[in-house]
Amino acid sequence: MKKAGVAILGLGVVGGGTYQILTEKREYFKKTQGVDLTVECVLEKNVERAKQLGVEESRIASSIEEVVANPNVDIVVEVIGGTGVAKTFVTKALMSGKTVVTSNKELFAKHWPELEEEAKKMNAGLFFEASCVGGVPIIRTLQEGMQANKILSIKGIINGTTNYILTKMAYEGWSYEEALKEAQRLGYAEFNPTADVEGFDATYKLSILSSLAFNKKICIENVYREGITGINKEDIAYGKEMGYTLKLLGIGKDTENGVEVRVHPTFVRNDDPLAAVNDSFNAVHLVGDAVGEIMLYGRGAGALPTGSAIVSDVIFAAKHDRYFYASFENNQKGNKETKFVDDFTSKYYLRLSVADKPGVLSKISGVFAKNNVSLKEVKQVAGEEGKAQIIITTHCCHESLVKKTLAKLDALDEVFEVQGTIRIED
Amino acid sequence: MKKAGVAILGLGVVGGGTYQILTEKREYFKKTQGVDLTVECVLEKNVERAKQLGVEESRIASSIEEVVANPNVDIVVEVIGGTGVAKTFVTKALMSGKTVVTSNKELFAKHWPELEEEAKKMNAGLFFEASCVGGVPIIRTLQEGMQANKILSIKGIINGTTNYILTKMAYEGWSYEEALKEAQRLGYAEFNPTADVEGFDATYKLSILSSLAFNKKICIENVYREGITGINKEDIAYGKEMGYTLKLLGIGKDTENGVEVRVHPTFVRNDDPLAAVNDSFNAVHLVGDAVGEIMLYGRGAGALPTGSAIVSDVIFAAKHDRYFYASFENNQKGNKETKFVDDFTSKYYLRLSVADKPGVLSKISGVFAKNNVSLKEVKQVAGEEGKAQIIITTHCCHESLVKKTLAKLDALDEVFEVQGTIRIED
Repeated sequence: MKKAGVAILGLGVVGGGTYQILTEKREYFKKTQGVDLTVECVLEKNVERAKQLGVEESRIASSIEEVVANPNVDIVVEVIGGTGVAKTFVTKALMSGKTVVTSNKELFAKHWPELEEEAKKMNAGLFFEASCVGGVPIIRTLQEGMQANKILSIKGIINGTTNYILTKMAYEGWSYEEALKEAQRLGYAEFNPTADVEGFDATYKLSILSSLAFNKKICIENVYREGITGINKEDIAYGKEMGYTLKLLGIGKDTENGVEVRVHPTFVRNDDPLAAVNDSFNAVHLVGDAVGEIMLYGRGAGALPTGSAIVSDVIFAAKHDRYFYASFENNQKGNKETKFVDDFTSKYYLRLSVADKPGVLSKISGVFAKNNVSLKEVKQVAGEEGKAQIIITTHCCHESLVKKTLAKLDALDEVFEVQGTIRIED
Repeated sequence: MKKAGVAILGLGVVGGGTYQILTEKREYFKKTQGVDLTVECVLEKNVERAKQLGVEESRIASSIEEVVANPNVDIVVEVIGGTGVAKTFVTKALMSGKTVVTSNKELFAKHWPELEEEAKKMNAGLFFEASCVGGVPIIRTLQEGMQANKILSIKGIINGTTNYILTKMAYEGWSYEEALKEAQRLGYAEFNPTADVEGFDATYKLSILSSLAFNKKICIENVYREGITGINKEDIAYGKEMGYTLKLLGIGKDTENGVEVRVHPTFVRNDDPLAAVNDSFNAVHLVGDAVGEIMLYGRGAGALPTGSAIVSDVIFAAKHDRYFYASFENNQKGNKETKFVDDFTSKYYLRLSVADKPGVLSKISGVFAKNNVSLKEVKQVAGEEGKAQIIITTHCCHESLVKKTLAKLDALDEVFEVQGTIRIED
């Protein structure tokens, strides 16, 4: 039977879940997977936490040097997060020839090529299933299940915190602030929620997923990013009436005109499979040139779901001798050889606060026409104190034209404010 | 670069798709996967068909002996189907030490252990991603993505033909016969549709999937099977009113009381992710003890989707040296060591045609009560010529009690007919 010794760096939520799965299921894995996995040591500053989880004192390492010097450790699991010590530790582990399994999306999005170079030098494995969409095996699917395909597009709800917030705004009618507060109370959102609500977390994941999907390194700088802090419940409600559900999507497309990668609030049709993905659930929708549409759905975070992804990687690493290294078409360190679409095309939902008087709608629609933005639906709703709201959806058009149009509209006396600007993907 | 020579046995729809992907994408796979795959030969009686696909005459083999004797062939793709020559050919390929990739669910459901024994003897690989749910990488997910989990349940829409028929009955109001005819016209259903509509195809797939999920060989004889030929559109419409959508589900559960495997028409809640899986799409919902809920969705059939799964296996086989062999807890040849649940519990939807006169409802509900079947909802609808319809949903109860109750009801003068008996899974 194959044996592998594991070290866990960091015993936070995910580290704890990983420790629990590995120790409780040792016999199960021997029987079902034919591998004997032992947790040889852990690295955790909070020794009490380690002891509470049941780690013997002799297995609590005091430094990364101690971990990598341990000849019984074959696989190092990094679940510290961030790009500080985590990067140092992962690099040291790889330099010692240890295979690394990580859940660290930020580290991977920012430093993948360097880490991979270190891994290759020592023929060490580098696994990161847990970095994207928690327990959903999306990385393995891209690497080992969709190889026959050129992936044309990827669309995903890849951040559970924002999906929880948007679900509550849509179904309970809560404001953004109310939904955020509840998400924080439940532990779905951090005290400082920026990484989630401003779309950074989704950007890291989209960078990793689209790099794998398109075989081209997509840096986070290439990803257009817009969070959900500017969303208000009126737009969600108007969208619903028009047949749309609002989601924070990570979207990647590999087209003849170049690669397009963006994270932003998006209206999807109510009958789109992504529309039914609620609360903290995640989902990734792929289109491959052979397989057509595929969607994977599941929990994107949490101790055991993310632990499940980590342990899946540990088992894969223990069983297979060949490690996956990404084979990007472009330079692994940059992306100068890749053409990106900057001025992408999209349909739009727009909401304007305007003066409630004759001729306004005609004037506004004239501005759209003059800028070659073709309208699909227009709706005027009476507001308060001489104001009206105009809700508009457009046909597909270039982003730049919409921006130009909105600037012109903003300059009109009759337009008080552009209150909602949301892309539609259908 | 790793090289692998491929032989394709059978150039039907799936064989043609496989040939197309392998030949058109040879350079792409060299670049993205680091493997050079060549189609060394094909075995196809219809030589014209082979030539039309572009196969050189010198590469059209005339016998399986010629194929297995070819030293350039490493991987044999079997896409003939059935258990006749397909079984002979696959066995011969394995006995020659060739790795086999197959889409043949019937062969695998019926002869997996024997085939695996042959494969092990020669250290040959045996891959079958394409046997279940076409292009959706459900086998790879169970083998390489969910290993950290004990799988508690599997629920799937695993037959596209019946899903197309049920979708049309639900959304277009067509009768079963009308929907079947259209499915045949579109090529979704065979001229003899028995394998699909009577649930045999789904039974083969459920046998394979639940064997993998539960690490126990589940034979097709252990699967309870009921097709959709008895379904009529009235029941679909009444179900819809009550918040349910009808699907042909393959259901597997691994519980303390034993394993439960069944294929039958099933009402799922309208907000169940499976309810939104329409037309010929397939989906599999899994619950793992670590990861929680996961769902995979995509095309279950067709030349390119199934070809995608086959080529994914071919690439995996070419890249990895370690082959997966199932490690079932029970005897691979049988299942005497496994406890199965025969009298499973379920909620029920029932529709009765009864005499429209006073006291009937009370008499009927009395029969349920006497047999310990607890009712959830009851609805009486006036019918024609002194008849009424009673629609009932029950709470969870043993199958045997429902059967006993229905037998008693059938014996009543006031009950003309039991017209619908459909299980509910929510």
